[in-house]
Amino acid sequence: MESVSTQLRVRYAETDQMGVVYHANYIVWMEVGRVEYFRAQGIRYRDMEQEGILLVVVEAHCRYHSPARYDEEVSIRTWVEEAGPRMIRFGYEMTDSLTGRHLATGETKHIFCGPDQKPKKLPEQYRPNFGIAK
Amino acid sequence: MESVSTQLRVRYAETDQMGVVYHANYIVWMEVGRVEYFRAQGIRYRDMEQEGILLVVVEAHCRYHSPARYDEEVSIRTWVEEAGPRMIRFGYEMTDSLTGRHLATGETKHIFCGPDQKPKKLPEQYRPNFGIAK
Amino acid sequence: MESVSTQLRVRYAETDQMGVVYHANYIVWMEVGRVEYFRAQGIRYRDMEQEGILLVVVEAHCRYHSPARYDEEVSIRTWVEEAGPRMIRFGYEMTDSLTGRHLATGETKHIFCGPDQKPKKLPEQYRPNFGIAK
Amino acid sequence: MESVSTQLRVRYAETDQMGVVYHANYIVWMEVGRVEYFRAQGIRYRDMEQEGILLVVVEAHCRYHSPARYDEEVSIRTWVEEAGPRMIRFGYEMTDSLTGRHLATGETKHIFCGPDQKPKKLPEQYRPNFGIAK
Repeated sequence: MESVSTQLRVRYAETDQMGVVYHANYIVWMEVGRVEYFRAQGIRYRDMEQEGILLVVVEAHCRYHSPARYDEEVSIRTWVEEAGPRMIRFGYEMTDSLTGRHLATGETKHIFCGPDQKPKKLPEQYRPNFGIAK
Repeated sequence: MESVSTQLRVRYAETDQMGVVYHANYIVWMEVGRVEYFRAQGIRYRDMEQEGILLVVVEAHCRYHSPARYDEEVSIRTWVEEAGPRMIRFGYEMTDSLTGRHLATGETKHIFCGPDQKPKKLPEQYRPNFGIAK
Repeated sequence: MESVSTQLRVRYAETDQMGVVYHANYIVWMEVGRVEYFRAQGIRYRDMEQEGILLVVVEAHCRYHSPARYDEEVSIRTWVEEAGPRMIRFGYEMTDSLTGRHLATGETKHIFCGPDQKPKKLPEQYRPNFGIAK
Repeated sequence: MESVSTQLRVRYAETDQMGVVYHANYIVWMEVGRVEYFRAQGIRYRDMEQEGILLVVVEAHCRYHSPARYDEEVSIRTWVEEAGPRMIRFGYEMTDSLTGRHLATGETKHIFCGPDQKPKKLPEQYRPNFGIAK
């Protein structure tokens, strides 16, 4: 499966007094990338959640290479690194859309849960979207 | 009824590239003040919410006087400006704890809602806490 | 002068446990609208800031009509309500892009400041962009 | 050197529609823990920054064990995992203050930089505070 790219513009609210994007915001951007990855698979994560399938984050990791700055357009490339009926791991690469400058890379690991937030296998109909064998 | 004061320390995440606190964060601080106001009345807002009484914000207003900065301790004074069985309006004053420097003033207006987020009268047992006549 | 519209998609990070967008985020969205208003005038706010002209927020106000929800596309319409060489006031209207449902309205008032964050008149070359008579 | 503990109360703004704390906020909390670690060493990070020593984050990692919820008091224990004149790595453990329930663990890695955000050795006077041999 391919990676999916999405763009966002850095908000003033996302900067800090160092004059760059505050580091926790890259974790939020990964979520933006992930949701667009779903959409590109024809899935709206909000629909999955309403059907009782939650993606609970169990791990997040970010390596910062070069700081993103206010008003820059950031491109987030998202892909599935590993997936099974019980968990999924996404990879992310963030770059400056204009220059291609490498900003950060990251991963998040999730387990599929039910509305009770207890682990649950991903229903079969969704598996092909993430390259998970039935 | 008296006002209730609570303190918080400005987080790096709350600053922006102007080197001061980003203005939307004062609205978050008002919520911190409000919750501590409740606690001082012997009420945990989370318990109210679990009992099905939500305080839905219908209006928020902030006037900024002097910028709060990173690592300063901010004092938030909260009081009820007006209250009835259907709505409540809180006032807030934010100052630098150390110097008393005036940072901002604000108000929020809320309506009481049920779990369906439809308007609902505040149950009688809570009214005295906010100076609302039964 | 006309109003300028821009769109954004609600992030999971912007929701709260009521299942709707946390109210302080609308203030952040107004800033997104404002920056796009500038861009439509041919001005990048970041360039203005680098030239030493800061728009310091002195007042923010939001009235909430109907809650925005996760993954909805929000349309922000921004216009200048009032402007002079020393201050500018923007108005905002936020709607659900898909249905036109009215979400919130707001205003922010700003004073022009120098890099020292002291008040300063807006340089003449920028005035026509905001309908300010020279 | 010992670990340093600090407490904070979960804000409504920090929750998301899953009814738990949004995962990026733990990264913000680590920063809260780190600043209090500095303070316990007799150092105010803001003073360091004003003297031209910035701690630039190059890596952040969080493992989520059990979700923190609104209004809970969270205890953050912070320690130095590894430190040298050019970099420092902090470890964090977050628990529910009341029950001791384990919420999350994390690490952040930082390089010391000058005001130009270029790498720079930590001045000798600060080294003993972080167990770095002169």
